[in-house]
Amino acid sequence: MAAKDTSKLSEEEHPMKGGDGPNSYANNSAYQKEVAGAAKELVDKAILEKLDLKVLLSSSKTFLIADLGCSIGPNTFFAVKNILEAVKFKYHSHQLCSDQVLEFQVFFSDHTSNDFNMLFKSLPNNRQYYAAGVPGSFYGRLFPNASIHIFHASYAIHWLSRVPKEVVDRNSPAWNKGRIHYLNSTDEVKRAFEAQLAEDMECFLHARAQEIVCGGLMVLIIPGIPHGIPHSHALANMTYQLLESCLMDMVRKGIVSEEKLDSFNIPMYFMSPQELEGCVERNGCFSIEVMKILPHVLAHGTVYNALVSTSHLRAALEGMIEQQFGEEILDDLFDLFHKKFEEQPSTSEPGKAINFLVVLKRN
Amino acid sequence: MAAKDTSKLSEEEHPMKGGDGPNSYANNSAYQKEVAGAAKELVDKAILEKLDLKVLLSSSKTFLIADLGCSIGPNTFFAVKNILEAVKFKYHSHQLCSDQVLEFQVFFSDHTSNDFNMLFKSLPNNRQYYAAGVPGSFYGRLFPNASIHIFHASYAIHWLSRVPKEVVDRNSPAWNKGRIHYLNSTDEVKRAFEAQLAEDMECFLHARAQEIVCGGLMVLIIPGIPHGIPHSHALANMTYQLLESCLMDMVRKGIVSEEKLDSFNIPMYFMSPQELEGCVERNGCFSIEVMKILPHVLAHGTVYNALVSTSHLRAALEGMIEQQFGEEILDDLFDLFHKKFEEQPSTSEPGKAINFLVVLKRN
Repeated sequence: MAAKDTSKLSEEEHPMKGGDGPNSYANNSAYQKEVAGAAKELVDKAILEKLDLKVLLSSSKTFLIADLGCSIGPNTFFAVKNILEAVKFKYHSHQLCSDQVLEFQVFFSDHTSNDFNMLFKSLPNNRQYYAAGVPGSFYGRLFPNASIHIFHASYAIHWLSRVPKEVVDRNSPAWNKGRIHYLNSTDEVKRAFEAQLAEDMECFLHARAQEIVCGGLMVLIIPGIPHGIPHSHALANMTYQLLESCLMDMVRKGIVSEEKLDSFNIPMYFMSPQELEGCVERNGCFSIEVMKILPHVLAHGTVYNALVSTSHLRAALEGMIEQQFGEEILDDLFDLFHKKFEEQPSTSEPGKAINFLVVLKRN
Repeated sequence: MAAKDTSKLSEEEHPMKGGDGPNSYANNSAYQKEVAGAAKELVDKAILEKLDLKVLLSSSKTFLIADLGCSIGPNTFFAVKNILEAVKFKYHSHQLCSDQVLEFQVFFSDHTSNDFNMLFKSLPNNRQYYAAGVPGSFYGRLFPNASIHIFHASYAIHWLSRVPKEVVDRNSPAWNKGRIHYLNSTDEVKRAFEAQLAEDMECFLHARAQEIVCGGLMVLIIPGIPHGIPHSHALANMTYQLLESCLMDMVRKGIVSEEKLDSFNIPMYFMSPQELEGCVERNGCFSIEVMKILPHVLAHGTVYNALVSTSHLRAALEGMIEQQFGEEILDDLFDLFHKKFEEQPSTSEPGKAINFLVVLKRN
């Protein structure tokens, strides 16, 4: 068996900021929560229409859910609760084995460096499930064969397993010198990121195909871009170019070394629904049951002001930036980012971004 | 269903010292490891002779093991590896379903305040199982119905779920004023601890009886005392009386308040094999397959010198003492303990202690 994580040495871990302080992910993930809220109805509908409980529960009265890239809450708890309640509703409305209580076990999974202590302390007291934490990368195996009924991953698989090697290799035509991302970079760099996505998605789907029961569902919520638009038009491009220019300023001031900046890239990829479709088709183990672009969730005004954007960015990237550049630059870097964000002309085109929901079913 | 931990409010958590510093449990659990080593052969034999793999695996090709009170390693990893290899050996030697690979999933469980981050970071790289952490008290439910094949708990169930209430109630005849334990106390106090053990063991066995599959095994390694000897003759009595006298000294010096000492008790009970037998019989869900006193493991000379004893005691009790008296007394208290331990006359009777192994099988 292949439970050991052979990819450990080369894979990167970028946990969300732990604890419950002002910069923690726990206090800076309201946007992701809004997105999950927009997806709720679609998830409920998919479970009601696409999940075949009779088959799934033929051999057991326990329903197993796994959330991948769970971070430390609270969003993972909302997502899991929604799924659980939808399954319960379906179970009771179909009067399946009504003599027996359906039990739930939920696996919260994230990188080993995730703050599981914080996650466990935050577990809702009135939860209706048995909880477990599973450390490891979702680009490898995490669970036994055919053991999970529903997988969930929200705002997770846009994190690549690593920065493509060529991108930090000064002898490669894909060397991404002076840039921290592919979005505003050369075609070579873009192709390197695209290839990494294809490789990672195959690992992801291959592992999940073994772990999920036949007929089981996989719910994915993914931040991406619409089909056919150039990478440089992605909304995140603006944010990352701003961050890049802050780091550049710090290089000029001698606070950050040029070498360190050259070897730093954000291992994230914003795919289009069509790109994911291609990955699923190449893998061949899943059918696409739902594929929907989620409505925009800007209505509450919680995003795109300088302060909130800075906090969100910091909660997500702080660990990675600290690892590369050291803790001492963090406050200055994000202060600078905040300042530059505010100074942007409000007329500037905000760029394109979508969140889309995919529900896959194991053949 | 009853996944929620209703006992949460009244139950106490006393995690072993986390991290990997000089006072950590990880670096001060060599004695427990020796005990586990002495038990290994007996555990192997029990699995070979008492485990009915055909029945257990009739519906699944995954074998589930749970270690209760796992702390942060490394002992839990050794224990789990031994069990896994014994099961694997049996599986292959009996050529059961040799066409399919047997997979293992291991649940490491301890209180929510246990350092799971450290545990996950220490997971062996070459492990042959899928790992998960489960936070919560083993005096309540932790797993779905009939989901675990082998439970293991070493040096765990001598921790009571709480200090008996009467013992810290100044209006009760069982008030344990000026003492931190039942071993050298009044009959009323001893009876209160005995009653707590009986109550806790019923909770423990009741929960496990639901979680374990029919024919599943539960392996318990318990530090206790021989049948029929008075509690005050227990080896731990010497240690705790010494600790008590150190705290008393600190009360006299005004470093520790008398009230705090009066309301402090170590929630531990050293049972005899016969007491456990009684609990198992009253519960009625398990048969006792093996019950053996383990050979003494003093040969390596790692225990009973002042320094090692102090370190071990500190690793186990520091959290609890810190909670009651504050962090600032820790160094002084254990320095004093070390000094008093060294000054003891070497002629003093060391007291009685046994470690015993019990293997229970679910009816």
